[in-house]
Amino acid sequence: MAEATPIRPQPADTIETWHYEADVVVAGYGIAGVSAAIEAARAGADVLVLERTSGWGGAAALAGGFIYLGGGTPLQKALGFEDSPANMKAFMMAALGPGADEEKITDYCDGSVEHYNWLVDNGVPFKESFYGQPGWETPFDDGLMYSGGENAAPFNTIATPAPRGHVPQMADKRTGEKGGGYMLMKPLVETAEELGVRAEYDMRVQRLIVDADGRVVGIIAKQYGKEIAVRARTGVVLATGSFAYNKEMVQNYAPRLIGKPGASIEEHDGRAIRMAQALGADLAHMDATEVAFFGDPQLMVRGILVNGRGQRYVNEDTYPGRIGQETLLRNENQAYLIIDEAAYEEGCAGDSSTPFFRFQPKWVAETAEELESEMGLPAGALVSTVEVYNRHAENGEDPVLGKKSEWCKPIGSPIAALDLRNFTAGFTLGGLRTTLNSEVLHVSGEPIPGLFAAGRCTSGVCAGGYASGTSLGDGSFYGRRAGVAAAKG
Amino acid sequence: MAEATPIRPQPADTIETWHYEADVVVAGYGIAGVSAAIEAARAGADVLVLERTSGWGGAAALAGGFIYLGGGTPLQKALGFEDSPANMKAFMMAALGPGADEEKITDYCDGSVEHYNWLVDNGVPFKESFYGQPGWETPFDDGLMYSGGENAAPFNTIATPAPRGHVPQMADKRTGEKGGGYMLMKPLVETAEELGVRAEYDMRVQRLIVDADGRVVGIIAKQYGKEIAVRARTGVVLATGSFAYNKEMVQNYAPRLIGKPGASIEEHDGRAIRMAQALGADLAHMDATEVAFFGDPQLMVRGILVNGRGQRYVNEDTYPGRIGQETLLRNENQAYLIIDEAAYEEGCAGDSSTPFFRFQPKWVAETAEELESEMGLPAGALVSTVEVYNRHAENGEDPVLGKKSEWCKPIGSPIAALDLRNFTAGFTLGGLRTTLNSEVLHVSGEPIPGLFAAGRCTSGVCAGGYASGTSLGDGSFYGRRAGVAAAKG
Repeated sequence: MAEATPIRPQPADTIETWHYEADVVVAGYGIAGVSAAIEAARAGADVLVLERTSGWGGAAALAGGFIYLGGGTPLQKALGFEDSPANMKAFMMAALGPGADEEKITDYCDGSVEHYNWLVDNGVPFKESFYGQPGWETPFDDGLMYSGGENAAPFNTIATPAPRGHVPQMADKRTGEKGGGYMLMKPLVETAEELGVRAEYDMRVQRLIVDADGRVVGIIAKQYGKEIAVRARTGVVLATGSFAYNKEMVQNYAPRLIGKPGASIEEHDGRAIRMAQALGADLAHMDATEVAFFGDPQLMVRGILVNGRGQRYVNEDTYPGRIGQETLLRNENQAYLIIDEAAYEEGCAGDSSTPFFRFQPKWVAETAEELESEMGLPAGALVSTVEVYNRHAENGEDPVLGKKSEWCKPIGSPIAALDLRNFTAGFTLGGLRTTLNSEVLHVSGEPIPGLFAAGRCTSGVCAGGYASGTSLGDGSFYGRRAGVAAAKG
Repeated sequence: MAEATPIRPQPADTIETWHYEADVVVAGYGIAGVSAAIEAARAGADVLVLERTSGWGGAAALAGGFIYLGGGTPLQKALGFEDSPANMKAFMMAALGPGADEEKITDYCDGSVEHYNWLVDNGVPFKESFYGQPGWETPFDDGLMYSGGENAAPFNTIATPAPRGHVPQMADKRTGEKGGGYMLMKPLVETAEELGVRAEYDMRVQRLIVDADGRVVGIIAKQYGKEIAVRARTGVVLATGSFAYNKEMVQNYAPRLIGKPGASIEEHDGRAIRMAQALGADLAHMDATEVAFFGDPQLMVRGILVNGRGQRYVNEDTYPGRIGQETLLRNENQAYLIIDEAAYEEGCAGDSSTPFFRFQPKWVAETAEELESEMGLPAGALVSTVEVYNRHAENGEDPVLGKKSEWCKPIGSPIAALDLRNFTAGFTLGGLRTTLNSEVLHVSGEPIPGLFAAGRCTSGVCAGGYASGTSLGDGSFYGRRAGVAAAKG
């Protein structure tokens, strides 16, 4: 197969014209890119950002805006939640593996309070209010929420529950105002502009430029179909996002997501990962995937989720992204929500961030026996699941999966089932392997000189599991590191 | 971190002395290496094999010896089994994904009968007898066996069941004679030797040698601590096995196997994968893992397997490697075998290949209720599972998981549980991405000139699932292709 636009590194001595030049060149103007740009500029570097689309923002500006922060941030403290770096680490190691990078997570937790302050200092607003309802996101402008199942089994016995989903303040979503991700990006981009960061748009990065010693000294991009050579005097930062929309890479590295890319932007084509691989860059956790699940948390928590065999498989009061992973990765993407009429009505009546997730039941019956028959499940499969659940729910207990007592209520009659099969989508979490200073690692174990990366084109704090806010979290955290390191060169 | 022994490709013009030279240089003298050596020699090439240990064999010689072949091999036909390339492909696509390489599987199935004949022509003996008992391997010298769950749900409804585990004839294992893998390797190595293939032992490959055009023209190895330059006039074949024993790679790519490497040899350190990555080679399915499960198939099939919540999760009459994957990857490595006394006695009395898998029950009780209580399972969890199973087993049915009728018998009293938690080990299935001609693909999508690979250092026919015999199968099949292609250069 011929190579349409070469991706192999280009020797610097073959460049005839340098069209642009800066100390630090950042590819991608999303959360990792803007964070790198700010810190590189503050370190005295002349910074140029190359953005593929016609404006800044990336996937971040379209996201809900969770940033995973903790260890005792001022917002956590003001709202009465205790946390520490060690407690945060205990949760992250348990929830984000297997194979989570302990060194990176320790570093991330230790620096989390400082990182919160950095965001605030750069104009990111957090409202001092906590949203405690089940949901993917707060429907209001609250600043803090559980976003990873910290207060649900099994993690509530592994670490002291503390909410760590920090959301930049936005207007009420239902008025159609910009969301939390936009409110994160806007002040940071303004800060970058004030610091003199330049940006060029419609620039699609193609390959790295290396000198005779193997040092990365620039990048080739295409702008309006023309190849542009951009020189980086001290460093190149890759911050171009995931590979969720690169079909070949998804097929070869994260096949559970075939046909199900989502929660991201179509520009996430993995090109920067390939460019660095062409230089011998190492990868990590390429199969790891965030999985969104389109069930309404307000309803799920009031019923029981069963798989294609009629068995419960996840505590329904946990982070919905965890429900998504359990459903797609371990239960063949088969899920039904079993709920009685009263609980369904109650769930629909409460405030909810996700009214568009609210589906009508597909099957309704007077008894679990009738319901299981209508659903085509093996006789006894669902009946026994409901019986065991109800037996313990009578006592406010769920010894099978540890749903919290407040949500344990026997399922009565009429009883319904919502069809939540194949209701997932997701984005990729794997990518370039990097150091704590966001240097891109060669397979030799050494950093590649002049090359830095952050955000979802790297493997960050998530190796397998996920919590909302970890992408904007490690993207901004290690984006900053990349900026500092790239400015030093 | 400093690079102890450089892994980056070395320019050919820096080589002062070529210690060895051949047309085709093969790294690794296991199944892929010997197959490559034979075909390269037959194509007229002067062939040199570099082997890390002090003798040929690799993991293959220690393996049970299954080679996954079908599509209507003479052995299948002689034993009365119908199969076709299309039928074989239907099974492999369903069982070895998600993300299985359709082009490779199609090619493999189309060439399978020819490949069987090639093995026979090169002296590999297959005895015309079929072993139909549940088991990991035949305890005798039978030549054919189910080795991937072809005759079990869900695959028995997706493709016509046909056994494809072809085993070279060996003496009765219980006499301590060499196993099927040895009986595969021995005639092939003898064939290679007759063809004039040379071998150098105690050679640890370190890095590739490339010319100014990026073509691979040799390999640096260490022999007795000294660096040795080996020139390859037409091609280098990498055939060094998996990365199961490279802790860092397992951590970053296949973390489910942390602490559980197995079923392979400790030389499987992934070095050749890293050497090629340093040249920009692409990878595929690095998270995929074979999982061995140390439960006795003769017992498992006569009981029910339940997970940590007391739920069934896999049909107990399927390929034990599939049970292993379901247990480790989707049920937190938690498994108990629930079996009544009569079935336990019957399972122990039958012939079995795996007497060393036979464990005593950990818990015994008169009723399922007592048993579940002794095991510490939530009240009703196991009782309801046994009830639902028994209700259908009375009719010889298993609508929940599709266990075959012949094995569906109600579980009576006394009832016991075997503790099979954390009873898995495995090896890695991912590796270099290759073409049908075993060329190693660069991330650009183009082959890397002069570089070929086969066996478990490549991603073969298995993307996620596994069937016994696919490693020796695609290792030998694509090893041959590598030899042919490397001889052409």
